[in-house]
Amino acid sequence: MNVTTKSQGMTEIKNGSIISPHGFHAGGLHCGIRKTKLDLAWLYTEKEAVAAAVYTTNSFKAAPLNVTKESIESNQTLSALICNSGVANACTGKQGEVDALEMRHLTAAKLGLAEKDVAVASTGLIGTLLPMDKIRSGIDEIDFNKPSAASFESAILTTDTVRKGVAVTLEIDGKTVTIGGAAKGSGMINPNMATMLSFITTDAHIEKGALTNALKSITNQSYNMITVDGDTSTNDMVCVMANGLAGNDQLDENHPEWHQFYEALFFVSQSLAKSIARDGEGATKLIEVQVEGAHTEEEAQQIAKSIIGSNLVKTAIHGSDANWGRIITAIGYSGIEIDPNAVDVALGDIDVVKQGVPVDFDEIEAKRYLEQDEIVIYASVGKGTASSKGWGCDLSYDYVQINASYRT
Amino acid sequence: MNVTTKSQGMTEIKNGSIISPHGFHAGGLHCGIRKTKLDLAWLYTEKEAVAAAVYTTNSFKAAPLNVTKESIESNQTLSALICNSGVANACTGKQGEVDALEMRHLTAAKLGLAEKDVAVASTGLIGTLLPMDKIRSGIDEIDFNKPSAASFESAILTTDTVRKGVAVTLEIDGKTVTIGGAAKGSGMINPNMATMLSFITTDAHIEKGALTNALKSITNQSYNMITVDGDTSTNDMVCVMANGLAGNDQLDENHPEWHQFYEALFFVSQSLAKSIARDGEGATKLIEVQVEGAHTEEEAQQIAKSIIGSNLVKTAIHGSDANWGRIITAIGYSGIEIDPNAVDVALGDIDVVKQGVPVDFDEIEAKRYLEQDEIVIYASVGKGTASSKGWGCDLSYDYVQINASYRT
Repeated sequence: MNVTTKSQGMTEIKNGSIISPHGFHAGGLHCGIRKTKLDLAWLYTEKEAVAAAVYTTNSFKAAPLNVTKESIESNQTLSALICNSGVANACTGKQGEVDALEMRHLTAAKLGLAEKDVAVASTGLIGTLLPMDKIRSGIDEIDFNKPSAASFESAILTTDTVRKGVAVTLEIDGKTVTIGGAAKGSGMINPNMATMLSFITTDAHIEKGALTNALKSITNQSYNMITVDGDTSTNDMVCVMANGLAGNDQLDENHPEWHQFYEALFFVSQSLAKSIARDGEGATKLIEVQVEGAHTEEEAQQIAKSIIGSNLVKTAIHGSDANWGRIITAIGYSGIEIDPNAVDVALGDIDVVKQGVPVDFDEIEAKRYLEQDEIVIYASVGKGTASSKGWGCDLSYDYVQINASYRT
Repeated sequence: MNVTTKSQGMTEIKNGSIISPHGFHAGGLHCGIRKTKLDLAWLYTEKEAVAAAVYTTNSFKAAPLNVTKESIESNQTLSALICNSGVANACTGKQGEVDALEMRHLTAAKLGLAEKDVAVASTGLIGTLLPMDKIRSGIDEIDFNKPSAASFESAILTTDTVRKGVAVTLEIDGKTVTIGGAAKGSGMINPNMATMLSFITTDAHIEKGALTNALKSITNQSYNMITVDGDTSTNDMVCVMANGLAGNDQLDENHPEWHQFYEALFFVSQSLAKSIARDGEGATKLIEVQVEGAHTEEEAQQIAKSIIGSNLVKTAIHGSDANWGRIITAIGYSGIEIDPNAVDVALGDIDVVKQGVPVDFDEIEAKRYLEQDEIVIYASVGKGTASSKGWGCDLSYDYVQINASYRT
């Protein structure tokens, strides 16, 4: 196993994935919803897993989300997941609910599980009914004995250009615990969930409530801190499953190594979130915004989201233009009351604003910095002690091209 | 005078402008801030005018706004306005304040007015000091005897592609009252004021408080309902001046023809706001969003802003793609609680969603409709009685091009 050493005893697994934790199996196939790309992904765990999920805040929740919610809420466990791409099964009325329930039923039947043990997810076009004949034969074709993380990662993608997987290991009670994940994103990405699916697996033994609370808290600092285009989709879901096969003592907030587990789960989530931002539709650069000096974390988050969500900031970064005025402007309209004369802004190590007024900086050096593919925008907004990070991408011609003709 | 008949006895003046009302004079010249375009605009009234203004909500308010605010607040009258384009005098610290005050001082001195009789506005690049030598000689060169509405309208523009002027007349107490206006917009346009300047003149005789209240209320239904890119600038201002030369009895909310005056002022404001949306950076189409069935006007406005602000809706309209799923999505994340099953959506006369689910529609007819340069998106969101309208534009390749290299 190729490994990279990480802080706090956590180790990232090279080419790690959603099936790195013990007892998880996953794969994907082409059932015909999309022309040639894989479009049906499956995941199951040998041993029933404790489960938790966070769903989109959009009023138009897609049918599969309600089905998954029902499955998890029955006893907060899951054994399998079925997910299609190409059609979102959103705004599909009664038939959409029937179809999502049938996807769950067929998957449960094939695995000999109860229906409440199966989660369902969909991503793709809104307002189109699922081609259930293709889904039915697709589920029928699944060979649960031939797992492939790469196929799973591919089958959940839409306009994404790269697969997104990650895994880490750490020691808990002297046992090796593994956490893995896979995600898709790309467009319609905005704080408070987006067209984003993220599935996390772990063989840790963990108490249900602790897992739920950890996922909620981590989601606010990872998935909810990325934006591609400010649109929050109907289909977003982050789902975590923990099957306990690592054999550690049950984790909860009082476990002496809880913090290490939390940090590892946080790392996996943040890593997937950043992958989504980096692969935003038409993106050529990952932008990280760091906000410091706010009164509360919520205020720091709101300012970070305001900067990372600004079309004008995003186009300036696309053009490698050190247009700090747009950053200042986005801070100013964030809705958080700040003292303009207490604001510092830097692009990487290059100070551009100090105490609310511009400082002389080397334009050529700034341009050279902004031409890189990872940009950090730093903003200190006052004397508070709270901070936050957010991630997004530049706004390019390709974003317009991709989205001017997505449907037709 | 060429006229077009309007409802309620109001008549739009063909080629009407900010100097259509009696006693107002305006012009513009090139003082050298911009390479060749006009960049210094002036306006004055023979008789002191009652004045009111609304300013940006951005925390970083540009220096000229504070100077104008001070002028108007002294006794709520104005006699002149000076405005430059090219440099916004925002984020310019103490020197910015000194420069804005000097612009006011020089204009007042040249006209023999008190400083408190003069308003100051600037628009353009943030964070750059005004080239005061050019401004000084520019103000010195102004010939107040050679008015030109076209020059005034041109000199306040930045990335705008067309001048924006309008005027209407109506009868009050048997006297002809005229209302005129000029505006600039283009980028950084978002509800709650944007890089938008709008100046309105009228020869109506009107009470100060009534003018202030009317402007605030009308701003919420016009300038605050347009969005180009979601960014709210540091320099926005709407300013109205009423010099009373029409000779009508003093207008206030109790005057029998108050409603007609209010509607005319509303028409002028809405007309300018729509001109700004239509001329959004890179825009090829004006999009009007009509929301009905909300519980309150504020909720209707929030839903309209959510639709008109969606990059995904804007790119779909750019590509003439009837992607109603994105409209539904934007309604769903507007923050207003709605029943998804009560939502209807239409593009012009073409129904695309009824009671939350898609209806069959003729794709070719829809594409033909969306290829026009004025698009109406209609959304009925429930059984409430409140409605709202908002305006915006499509998101094009040109928007990205304009904004990737605005500064450098």
